[in-house]
Amino acid sequence: MQRRPRILVIGYNGNHCSEKAYDLAYRVGREIAKRNGIVITGGLGGVMEASCKGASDDGGLSVGIVPQEDDSMANSYADIVIPTGVGYARDFINVYTADAVIIIGGGAGTLIEVSAAYLRSKPIFALAGSGGVADEVADTFIDDRKNVKIESGKDPAEVVEGAFAAIKKAS
Amino acid sequence: MQRRPRILVIGYNGNHCSEKAYDLAYRVGREIAKRNGIVITGGLGGVMEASCKGASDDGGLSVGIVPQEDDSMANSYADIVIPTGVGYARDFINVYTADAVIIIGGGAGTLIEVSAAYLRSKPIFALAGSGGVADEVADTFIDDRKNVKIESGKDPAEVVEGAFAAIKKAS
Amino acid sequence: MQRRPRILVIGYNGNHCSEKAYDLAYRVGREIAKRNGIVITGGLGGVMEASCKGASDDGGLSVGIVPQEDDSMANSYADIVIPTGVGYARDFINVYTADAVIIIGGGAGTLIEVSAAYLRSKPIFALAGSGGVADEVADTFIDDRKNVKIESGKDPAEVVEGAFAAIKKAS
Amino acid sequence: MQRRPRILVIGYNGNHCSEKAYDLAYRVGREIAKRNGIVITGGLGGVMEASCKGASDDGGLSVGIVPQEDDSMANSYADIVIPTGVGYARDFINVYTADAVIIIGGGAGTLIEVSAAYLRSKPIFALAGSGGVADEVADTFIDDRKNVKIESGKDPAEVVEGAFAAIKKAS
Repeated sequence: MQRRPRILVIGYNGNHCSEKAYDLAYRVGREIAKRNGIVITGGLGGVMEASCKGASDDGGLSVGIVPQEDDSMANSYADIVIPTGVGYARDFINVYTADAVIIIGGGAGTLIEVSAAYLRSKPIFALAGSGGVADEVADTFIDDRKNVKIESGKDPAEVVEGAFAAIKKAS
Repeated sequence: MQRRPRILVIGYNGNHCSEKAYDLAYRVGREIAKRNGIVITGGLGGVMEASCKGASDDGGLSVGIVPQEDDSMANSYADIVIPTGVGYARDFINVYTADAVIIIGGGAGTLIEVSAAYLRSKPIFALAGSGGVADEVADTFIDDRKNVKIESGKDPAEVVEGAFAAIKKAS
Repeated sequence: MQRRPRILVIGYNGNHCSEKAYDLAYRVGREIAKRNGIVITGGLGGVMEASCKGASDDGGLSVGIVPQEDDSMANSYADIVIPTGVGYARDFINVYTADAVIIIGGGAGTLIEVSAAYLRSKPIFALAGSGGVADEVADTFIDDRKNVKIESGKDPAEVVEGAFAAIKKAS
Repeated sequence: MQRRPRILVIGYNGNHCSEKAYDLAYRVGREIAKRNGIVITGGLGGVMEASCKGASDDGGLSVGIVPQEDDSMANSYADIVIPTGVGYARDFINVYTADAVIIIGGGAGTLIEVSAAYLRSKPIFALAGSGGVADEVADTFIDDRKNVKIESGKDPAEVVEGAFAAIKKAS
């Protein structure tokens, strides 16, 4: 069985998301859906919501893996909500579920997910110019291990294309 | 947004699953898919595999929430694998993700999921005659709290119908 | 290095704990402390609190592994609080931390911990006459695997003595 | 009840720990023990082992919160091992258990713990000159939230003194 690629989209949450980052995440969601990928997110607001919405508007499928024990905080666009009840430890579950990761802005929480993805040597793509963690880690390694270099791309289509290419190469 | 109902199917794992229980779980998976529900399972063998296979054969959708950090142990029929990396603590995630629970046989691991579902007052249905925990807990409460009585049904269609009715009533 | 034995005490929580069960748990805590064991509990009320208090009154050491992300709900007698932030998934951490388990009463939550301990083949002792799960599972196996028989004892000294003997035998 | 302060020591693991970082961590462990604090660590090698050893040599108490389901990978100096079975999600448990955090070197895993501590606004102290993440984050904020500035100190006594002072101030 060939499963559909799962792309984790991370970045600014609902409290810190610029309009620009929201729009970029929305377009990333659409690009993933167009290529028959599944959008994986942390299921809450900001970049998480926007990418689920994008997938939804393109008839795609999205999963929201939330920290809470129920669906009450999930955004309205995630098709399947996975309430983990493990709090922010769900960041690791997001990463384990990802075949590739796309970063749009983000702060300390995003940095946790990037670091976890790096430790697991997942393909990681930063959307250049989206701010925060995405711009800080673009084109770098996280530490001396040099597990995986974080790639960067200039627009939604480019990073999504890169993610699908990396998944294809790894499979 | 109206999300599709999520039915958790639990019971014998791959090491302890009778042919009868496997067949019952397969039919439960088909019945859930027919009604446009999503089959949620622990993603491994036995009842988990059979219900994913049933959903697949009816064009339905299934999610496998596995204990491991990657997909390597997941059965081949789960459409979306969620590797949690939290070991058997993923039993709670299964339960939190469920709008209703169906039990087919099962041992101590199944009893953990039934107890967790009971503590959260989820609708629970035991398939009568499927053996193990399903038959032990059918038509009982788990403790003095009397949170929720575990219902029983005589065949796959009946328990699945019961689960959908309970979800509709709760929403 | 020879570490001190860790005895997990489980049973009725603060909302469902009889005076009798509280007193038994207190005495179990003292008996563990007397033998230089460490009392491990879920860190909240009822049996968890009483066994920490017993250890404290005998100059012993107790650990409270709580579901929350901070200490705010921990009982006042646990010497070391471990806030897990993983909710009731901390039940598994309690069990993994235990060299042996003692049951005093209890409901569905206790049944989860007993089942988890059984799956890991930990030595388990039920205090006879303490009610609830303790009396239900005393002198039984949880399922057909027959991993480990749950022993029973008539008073705190007997179950604690049994737990220490089982740990010594296993080491 | 006044509980003993819990200081989390994080940094290079056993595969990446320089002799210098090991020695610094050992001395941090001793300084914590001298002040009657409890050393909290991830329970494995490198900085985790060294700080437990330091505490041990000064008659102090240390806790090792490990990713595994049993004690088998724990270092020999941790007095109390907490096997979590949740894999690297235990990084969050380490942080929740900390009243303050001390960083000695470290890579991506350490960065996860620093970010988690920052999100919870815990007092954080980097040992200057210890390399890796400690030197990268010293005297900075992790993101625009400016939750808490990471302090730095030039030697073990200074960072431990700082940690105790911060805990006292917060209580």
